[in-house]
Amino acid sequence: MEVTTPRVHNLHHVEVFTPKPNESLDFFTRVLGLHETHREGQSVYLRGAGEWARYSTILTEGPEPGLGHMAWQVAEPDQVEGWARRMKDVGVEHKLESGGSRFAQGDTLSFTGPFGHRTELFYDFERYVPAEPSKLLSQPVKFPNPGIGAKRLDHLNITARNVDEARDWYTDVLGFKLREAARTPDGDIGVWMSVTSQVHDLAIMRDGLGERGRLHHIAYYLDTPETLLRAADTFVEEGTPIDAGPGKHGLTQAFFIYVFEPGGNRVELFSGGYPIHGPDWEPIIWDGAAIEKAIVWYGGQLPDTFFTVAT
Amino acid sequence: MEVTTPRVHNLHHVEVFTPKPNESLDFFTRVLGLHETHREGQSVYLRGAGEWARYSTILTEGPEPGLGHMAWQVAEPDQVEGWARRMKDVGVEHKLESGGSRFAQGDTLSFTGPFGHRTELFYDFERYVPAEPSKLLSQPVKFPNPGIGAKRLDHLNITARNVDEARDWYTDVLGFKLREAARTPDGDIGVWMSVTSQVHDLAIMRDGLGERGRLHHIAYYLDTPETLLRAADTFVEEGTPIDAGPGKHGLTQAFFIYVFEPGGNRVELFSGGYPIHGPDWEPIIWDGAAIEKAIVWYGGQLPDTFFTVAT
Amino acid sequence: MEVTTPRVHNLHHVEVFTPKPNESLDFFTRVLGLHETHREGQSVYLRGAGEWARYSTILTEGPEPGLGHMAWQVAEPDQVEGWARRMKDVGVEHKLESGGSRFAQGDTLSFTGPFGHRTELFYDFERYVPAEPSKLLSQPVKFPNPGIGAKRLDHLNITARNVDEARDWYTDVLGFKLREAARTPDGDIGVWMSVTSQVHDLAIMRDGLGERGRLHHIAYYLDTPETLLRAADTFVEEGTPIDAGPGKHGLTQAFFIYVFEPGGNRVELFSGGYPIHGPDWEPIIWDGAAIEKAIVWYGGQLPDTFFTVAT
Amino acid sequence: MEVTTPRVHNLHHVEVFTPKPNESLDFFTRVLGLHETHREGQSVYLRGAGEWARYSTILTEGPEPGLGHMAWQVAEPDQVEGWARRMKDVGVEHKLESGGSRFAQGDTLSFTGPFGHRTELFYDFERYVPAEPSKLLSQPVKFPNPGIGAKRLDHLNITARNVDEARDWYTDVLGFKLREAARTPDGDIGVWMSVTSQVHDLAIMRDGLGERGRLHHIAYYLDTPETLLRAADTFVEEGTPIDAGPGKHGLTQAFFIYVFEPGGNRVELFSGGYPIHGPDWEPIIWDGAAIEKAIVWYGGQLPDTFFTVAT
Repeated sequence: MEVTTPRVHNLHHVEVFTPKPNESLDFFTRVLGLHETHREGQSVYLRGAGEWARYSTILTEGPEPGLGHMAWQVAEPDQVEGWARRMKDVGVEHKLESGGSRFAQGDTLSFTGPFGHRTELFYDFERYVPAEPSKLLSQPVKFPNPGIGAKRLDHLNITARNVDEARDWYTDVLGFKLREAARTPDGDIGVWMSVTSQVHDLAIMRDGLGERGRLHHIAYYLDTPETLLRAADTFVEEGTPIDAGPGKHGLTQAFFIYVFEPGGNRVELFSGGYPIHGPDWEPIIWDGAAIEKAIVWYGGQLPDTFFTVAT
Repeated sequence: MEVTTPRVHNLHHVEVFTPKPNESLDFFTRVLGLHETHREGQSVYLRGAGEWARYSTILTEGPEPGLGHMAWQVAEPDQVEGWARRMKDVGVEHKLESGGSRFAQGDTLSFTGPFGHRTELFYDFERYVPAEPSKLLSQPVKFPNPGIGAKRLDHLNITARNVDEARDWYTDVLGFKLREAARTPDGDIGVWMSVTSQVHDLAIMRDGLGERGRLHHIAYYLDTPETLLRAADTFVEEGTPIDAGPGKHGLTQAFFIYVFEPGGNRVELFSGGYPIHGPDWEPIIWDGAAIEKAIVWYGGQLPDTFFTVAT
Repeated sequence: MEVTTPRVHNLHHVEVFTPKPNESLDFFTRVLGLHETHREGQSVYLRGAGEWARYSTILTEGPEPGLGHMAWQVAEPDQVEGWARRMKDVGVEHKLESGGSRFAQGDTLSFTGPFGHRTELFYDFERYVPAEPSKLLSQPVKFPNPGIGAKRLDHLNITARNVDEARDWYTDVLGFKLREAARTPDGDIGVWMSVTSQVHDLAIMRDGLGERGRLHHIAYYLDTPETLLRAADTFVEEGTPIDAGPGKHGLTQAFFIYVFEPGGNRVELFSGGYPIHGPDWEPIIWDGAAIEKAIVWYGGQLPDTFFTVAT
Repeated sequence: MEVTTPRVHNLHHVEVFTPKPNESLDFFTRVLGLHETHREGQSVYLRGAGEWARYSTILTEGPEPGLGHMAWQVAEPDQVEGWARRMKDVGVEHKLESGGSRFAQGDTLSFTGPFGHRTELFYDFERYVPAEPSKLLSQPVKFPNPGIGAKRLDHLNITARNVDEARDWYTDVLGFKLREAARTPDGDIGVWMSVTSQVHDLAIMRDGLGERGRLHHIAYYLDTPETLLRAADTFVEEGTPIDAGPGKHGLTQAFFIYVFEPGGNRVELFSGGYPIHGPDWEPIIWDGAAIEKAIVWYGGQLPDTFFTVAT
């Protein structure tokens, strides 16, 4: 009866670098509605209105925008060491740090994946304890949700020079399941993968400049499409640069809007998608003429920047 | 690195008995928008617009409404035998049937749980192949979704004489995780549990008449609260008896409407809820004065029938 | 080609008395999202996010909650005197005050209608000039809309001992058109009337206590049903007493929630309704068994307070 | 007290020509959800789910797509002759036909306006009597609304070589009020006008080819933005050519999608807008840098076809 798939359990948080820390912080808190829970060094720790973790987002001052690291929670406390052995087996340099080296976070394995993305795995994490709890006990903050109502970090989209290789590594080594792919005769140009019942926790797209370790976007969930349309109103009013949307991808059934936060990182607000509950999902492959609808189901065409700008 | 929790993987389908099979079928197809895929004996097999399985719902003619059985998929093909051993260990009579004894379904373990609910476990299941596929490749049917847009079977709510015992059995034996509970000094009166990232795949409420093996309701997912309001318009127009709602429970953050299908079984249309992705969820306990908001966050009070009528 | 119907043109504002001016002001501004534009004497003047008038709502301190006055704009500047003649003709005592006696308001005719409701008619009114205009030039405030997003004063519901007489007076003298009515063999128990293309600018319901000059509720418009559901979340969180809803009346197709503001006046948040553009509307009459659906199309039954409490 | 503004009262219906009558009829009925009420000659008469008139849309077979005529209702039965005198005064050739010359329509004044658009004015019109009335008495059809839920004809957008002249004629002669305009130093390039409380019943845009009498689009109202997003799903599935959207104009606050019906006419599905109830509206003028947001508040850029293709 043992389930032997070694698989990370869920996306926990992401750290992004910003050369404009004050402007970025204003955007993530006042506009998106995240909530500051901690400051340490050059970093500010933030959480969304629907998150019980102390943070899902770390903003760290840096000379350039980009991915600091992505952090995945594992399923059981004693798995962190197992993952260290696994990284050794697959030849990835890594470091095991005991709890407390990061705020609110337990024993942590850190490594840089073969495509250049700094990554952390851990199990223990402090739960957020609201100072003013909502009467809705399962919700960490009181109504109304602040800002545009960004509820929680939903997924991450990173780039790789060779998406086929990246897809294989993330499925073979970290246990991701392929959910959807945009496939050409020359290989996949994008893959959408998950370890949860979400259609994607992690997407990997071909890097437009052939670079390593870059971030395409981080995505926050909004409760409904209507909430996203209201968010668009606010972005226009604020003068937030909109990269694309509102629109809908065929891929993942995402109702999306992409903006650039003041530090230069692309942020998606996302609603929709679909759950995958069965264990036997057959990946959806978009190829040939179908790729057009995969990219834009409805809404304006994506700008060139969407395919070239990553951070 | 082994994950050793024996846990069923996801709710797959439910069979309900109806003394009015034609009227029930009309309701499930024309009004709810499910799609007939098969008939066999006294049963009609139905699937929702967002489901890739051949069926999630079986309507079977019977002298009284009630639960035929609930069926759960397991995570790996070879787990069915493991579950048979586990049932033997916990002293539950069971039967192992090889694939094909049920339409579209592989090797199956069937048993009646200690609280009287007939249950099936299996892994293999035939995927639905749409005759006219949508251009949206991840969606099994073309737009627009038929009827009120019932997307997929979401969860099941059953009753038990002693909810504490039922909660313990389902968590200890089948691997459910407790997500929320309504707790009194005399024990839990309702528990909401899941094996997926949904806040509930299975709920158990105290049986108002102290009976065994009864069904409180089956629930289908609707994409948005607005879709549910439109569904309410249709139910009123159709003369479908509405038991409660539209309204919102504090419990599970469910935006709900409960109706009785013509055969007498209660059906919930559900939108909202929240995902639980982390492995370390702390159950939400509603007790004392909080129970009132647990039951009705907003909307009219629930009628007495809600607490007494089960099938 | 002259159009000779003497008809008031549109609802402009309403004044309500509150014995708890600070708590009421907090509710109307922080929770509903109205915006204070002026203070004078015991009154605070407020406007909604979608209103170009200086105010639509006046909160005035008083020993008891209730209607201060309702104010209707007329179609042309020179009609105010004409309305004074008309009031004389129909034997209603009235006063004509020149512009400036009320903040931002021009020449005004004031009178107490035959059912005890203090009323003002005028044409001239100062337009609101936003200090920080929205980039959306037709919107007086920047996105996001504050509070629950109450957009504008929509309609007023008053009570009368004899609804038939009130209906006739408001249609014959002020030019209202009857849009819908709840009719019994003993006469109308409620009428919904308008001078604009809205299904109601003014409703009159039978006074549950047989009193004169009372207010049943004032209603603000919310953009969508979903906005109203989020408002309900906020009301529950705030502990705002909810009298009824969310639900939908058959009458006027109103998606509604009714709450009591801290001063004791009932406030409706309203979405939906329908426009009446043609000149030849035939009133919708709900009688006999249909009255039940007129009152509650869906949602919980209305409480007794709905039919007895007015201010 | 006389109101002396000669003003048409409301848009009643529109006739469009189609070279593909069967395909157009399928689109307007099955996809948009209009309902056929009559056939006569080469014309099919259609009404929307929220319309009490016998028809709001006439599809007439013709060699080219384009506007047949637009029809406006007047405020009082005896005004038709007055309008005939007025047309004579302003030197517009016209014809007065007695009732019955058009299906369901009374005495009618017809003329071709100075910018080439055939127009009819009348008062009397037969009301639709539903064969199977809804329990919601104010709604002409039962729930659920068919197709994508096009509720009613909302407005019309026509083109003119000289928008300034057209604006003046429609305001001076037919009594339209200017609500919004896109203004350049060379004159207005678009004007949005109404005779009702809608922000526009009629829009006039500069004809991209300098032609006369052309139609830019006819627009149907959808209840909510979410309904429009679902409509977009259906259009993509159907392969309906989408000209622009979903998106939002700053102008009129329109949430829009524009498609081409099979006959080649552009059809807008529209939600949002805002009401204008006061008699003293100051037109919103978009000029200079603001014009960009007037055209696209959010959503992809409009294609060139939007500015050149009319029928």
